[in-house]
Amino acid sequence: MRQTNPVDIHALSLRARQTWRLADLAQAVDAEYIGDGQTKITGAAPLDRAGSSDIAFLSDARYRKFLDSTHAAVVILSSEESRIWANAAIPRLITDNPYAVYAKVANCLYRELPRQGSIHPSAVVAASATVAPDACIGANAVIGENAVIGARAIIEAGAVIGDKVSIGEDTHIYPNVVVYPRCRIGARTILHSGCVIGADGFGFAFEAGRWIKIPQIGRVVIGDDVEIGANTTIDRGALDDTVIENDVKIDNQVQIGHNCEIGEHAAIVACTGIAGSVRVGRYCRIGGAAMIGGHLTIGEGVVIGAASPVFSSIEKPGVYSGIYPILPHRQWQKNAVQLRQLDALYQRVRALEKKLDENK
Amino acid sequence: MRQTNPVDIHALSLRARQTWRLADLAQAVDAEYIGDGQTKITGAAPLDRAGSSDIAFLSDARYRKFLDSTHAAVVILSSEESRIWANAAIPRLITDNPYAVYAKVANCLYRELPRQGSIHPSAVVAASATVAPDACIGANAVIGENAVIGARAIIEAGAVIGDKVSIGEDTHIYPNVVVYPRCRIGARTILHSGCVIGADGFGFAFEAGRWIKIPQIGRVVIGDDVEIGANTTIDRGALDDTVIENDVKIDNQVQIGHNCEIGEHAAIVACTGIAGSVRVGRYCRIGGAAMIGGHLTIGEGVVIGAASPVFSSIEKPGVYSGIYPILPHRQWQKNAVQLRQLDALYQRVRALEKKLDENK
Amino acid sequence: MRQTNPVDIHALSLRARQTWRLADLAQAVDAEYIGDGQTKITGAAPLDRAGSSDIAFLSDARYRKFLDSTHAAVVILSSEESRIWANAAIPRLITDNPYAVYAKVANCLYRELPRQGSIHPSAVVAASATVAPDACIGANAVIGENAVIGARAIIEAGAVIGDKVSIGEDTHIYPNVVVYPRCRIGARTILHSGCVIGADGFGFAFEAGRWIKIPQIGRVVIGDDVEIGANTTIDRGALDDTVIENDVKIDNQVQIGHNCEIGEHAAIVACTGIAGSVRVGRYCRIGGAAMIGGHLTIGEGVVIGAASPVFSSIEKPGVYSGIYPILPHRQWQKNAVQLRQLDALYQRVRALEKKLDENK
Repeated sequence: MRQTNPVDIHALSLRARQTWRLADLAQAVDAEYIGDGQTKITGAAPLDRAGSSDIAFLSDARYRKFLDSTHAAVVILSSEESRIWANAAIPRLITDNPYAVYAKVANCLYRELPRQGSIHPSAVVAASATVAPDACIGANAVIGENAVIGARAIIEAGAVIGDKVSIGEDTHIYPNVVVYPRCRIGARTILHSGCVIGADGFGFAFEAGRWIKIPQIGRVVIGDDVEIGANTTIDRGALDDTVIENDVKIDNQVQIGHNCEIGEHAAIVACTGIAGSVRVGRYCRIGGAAMIGGHLTIGEGVVIGAASPVFSSIEKPGVYSGIYPILPHRQWQKNAVQLRQLDALYQRVRALEKKLDENK
Repeated sequence: MRQTNPVDIHALSLRARQTWRLADLAQAVDAEYIGDGQTKITGAAPLDRAGSSDIAFLSDARYRKFLDSTHAAVVILSSEESRIWANAAIPRLITDNPYAVYAKVANCLYRELPRQGSIHPSAVVAASATVAPDACIGANAVIGENAVIGARAIIEAGAVIGDKVSIGEDTHIYPNVVVYPRCRIGARTILHSGCVIGADGFGFAFEAGRWIKIPQIGRVVIGDDVEIGANTTIDRGALDDTVIENDVKIDNQVQIGHNCEIGEHAAIVACTGIAGSVRVGRYCRIGGAAMIGGHLTIGEGVVIGAASPVFSSIEKPGVYSGIYPILPHRQWQKNAVQLRQLDALYQRVRALEKKLDENK
Repeated sequence: MRQTNPVDIHALSLRARQTWRLADLAQAVDAEYIGDGQTKITGAAPLDRAGSSDIAFLSDARYRKFLDSTHAAVVILSSEESRIWANAAIPRLITDNPYAVYAKVANCLYRELPRQGSIHPSAVVAASATVAPDACIGANAVIGENAVIGARAIIEAGAVIGDKVSIGEDTHIYPNVVVYPRCRIGARTILHSGCVIGADGFGFAFEAGRWIKIPQIGRVVIGDDVEIGANTTIDRGALDDTVIENDVKIDNQVQIGHNCEIGEHAAIVACTGIAGSVRVGRYCRIGGAAMIGGHLTIGEGVVIGAASPVFSSIEKPGVYSGIYPILPHRQWQKNAVQLRQLDALYQRVRALEKKLDENK
């Protein structure tokens, strides 16, 4: 057993709480405040469970009932809600986008601590790799030949970074992630545990009763400010690259096939599968558990509902759904019988219409 | 290369066979037996392939045809089946729940051997971690700062246990599992390879055309006697914890979003996705490949069929299904055309009804 | 930190480019050529982006428009396309199966280099394991007791090979794969990162309000020339083995339950889930995101469409689909209302038919 000193595997830690005064916090998150600017805030909590130094926020009108009884030190409100709740004595942050202000507040309160650069003695780093002096390489991580690890990047325990991979500055790679050779990961990007970037796309030719593997020689190129969830897989391109643009957010267990291009600011919810060569436009929101067939184009700003299968391109912005409705089992059975012969039902309706016309 | 002696990575082994006499086995599993109590049993096998020292069981009336020709040493039967098959000479175990008795029998025959506590020399254990003297830490496993590993717990090769995680006694963590910081895992719980416990929930606020990450500061808290399948992901809570209660069984590649609460004894089959803040009641059975939308409540004892999407709460116990029926492709195509215009068909039927009423 | 010399973690590299002359390439891939046999080829690229030493291929008649303007050194064409495009001066490879010839060409151009056998000093190899002298074991890989690693096999960084596992010759296991004890992997097989072979099947008996685990004592047995995608999971059998036959190709994030048997040359696309004890016939093509219920038989050569649920056996070859059609949300809502009461609609049509008959 090798013991480590705290700095070495500090990369396993999460955020540390910071204490703020309301006035400073309001300034930091660019919101207005009402009440005592000296109010001390040490954490965030739901309205109904907030303690006397917590900040809470009204995420939904349904929770308005908790406003009067909350013990929170400060509440984040929209200007409209603040007007409705004008009489209360509790200090507040006022904003047009409470959810965004909450996000910024939480990032102030639970801050990732800066770390000293360090390479754990158990890490295996190729002699030809370039690791920034202030990067952290965790226990048993492996860094391949000619890989480049950017400033302040964190590669946690057990992660395997392939040959010639480049990892941008401030990027955080969680334990046991695998990045295959030659892929590029931008700056301030987060890869959660178990995600696999750059495995071979699924490409085989069929000849004489057998499969022949088609080498997958493209890469995966991931931009800046991307987040990729646990156990998500993004395949390398067959000839060209698979591209994930800046500020794309991808949840857990998403599968993205070879040669896809996911446009900036798109969000893809968990369990979604995207087949090969799909272009997803900027600002799309997809899934969870949506399934998108190969070689399609999803236009900018399109929203695909959860559990919806997409097998033709969608150009026009809007919300699209294809959720089969769940029912008590017996009702479902009866309907399913009719669904299997829906075309026949349609023909019967047509026959009735014709008959009725003739009867006139 | 570092070589290991057998004890060090014994954690990679599975169960070892034990020999039993029928009378002892009947007592151990609390069932009655008929026949020679000295009959030797060394393994379990299907009825049609059992050898002369194997025990077999009748799992389904369809397999009754194998009873007369089986070479099994002993057969597990329900009292009813035993009455039907009264004439046969083969010794038998008799019970009202053959499947449960089979489970207990198999646990007797294929027993996990107790192991001596050991920490593999290649494991990286933080100096501040507390590891029970009889726990096993496998090769290249990483144990974070202030983590607590309980009595007889097994952390296999390559697993990464984050800072401040606690692992209960007799819990078995398979190779390459990742548990993020601060999560709690109960006693006698099993985490299979590749599962990721405590990655960030998918939480972002949208402002000025960009996403802002919402820190996920809750934990995942997993109870006792839980089993979690390979490559399953359970996200940490945003503010509160994600909770998996005692005796919950979760299959492979299941995704559970932040702040879910899964009630005791629930079973969730493979490929199921559960979005954030869902409450699943005790004794629910879900999936596989079911999809449950966010913020819903699934009442105690509800059964959700495989491949079914759930997008509203279900309070009433019962079986619910939403499987779209598969058909030969041409039939499907014809039906799908009508399905896309089902509302129009409905309007045509209404029109016909009206016309017919007027014609009277 | 331990540094490595290039040979040690070369296993992380991908393929290296080779330069070919057209005449040699034609011979190697068993195709005819037209034009200068000395034409130098150094890479492959899409028709519209190929450079002057690239080979390109016409994968689809839609791309025929790029033929006249391509800068490719050589184009792969079917004999028919070659006849249509008879006048062009660009050298060509002619074949009845351009996709298969492209696959072979790409394997010539991007060749996996042979490696010298080596065991990285950080790897943990049990004293009782047998590793072929020309096999490569990567950094921090773990090889269990009595495991057998075949000739020229590559076990990359962080992979964990359980006790008594056997790995065939020329098999390539990517980083952080886990193979549970006693499983068998054939020759020339590829396991991509994060896949988990041989975790326990999902088997529990219910008694007195609690689950009892059923030991999963079978194995996973994988044949030769199989490829298994990233984060795919294949469970070990309950009593018998789970079997993946030769030349089966499985994509990412596929789940295969205990005791399945997948026949030779079958292909299973990403995100597909197959429950326990399913028999998939030879040459089947399934998914992606298809879901197959337990204990079913899918006959030889059956094709299951993407996103289709299968809950009864399919014997007859053919294409089967069950994709629920996606629509703009409002249209979907209207249709879904009718779908929930489809049986009622059917009854109304029957009533109309009866009435009309009586009216005559």
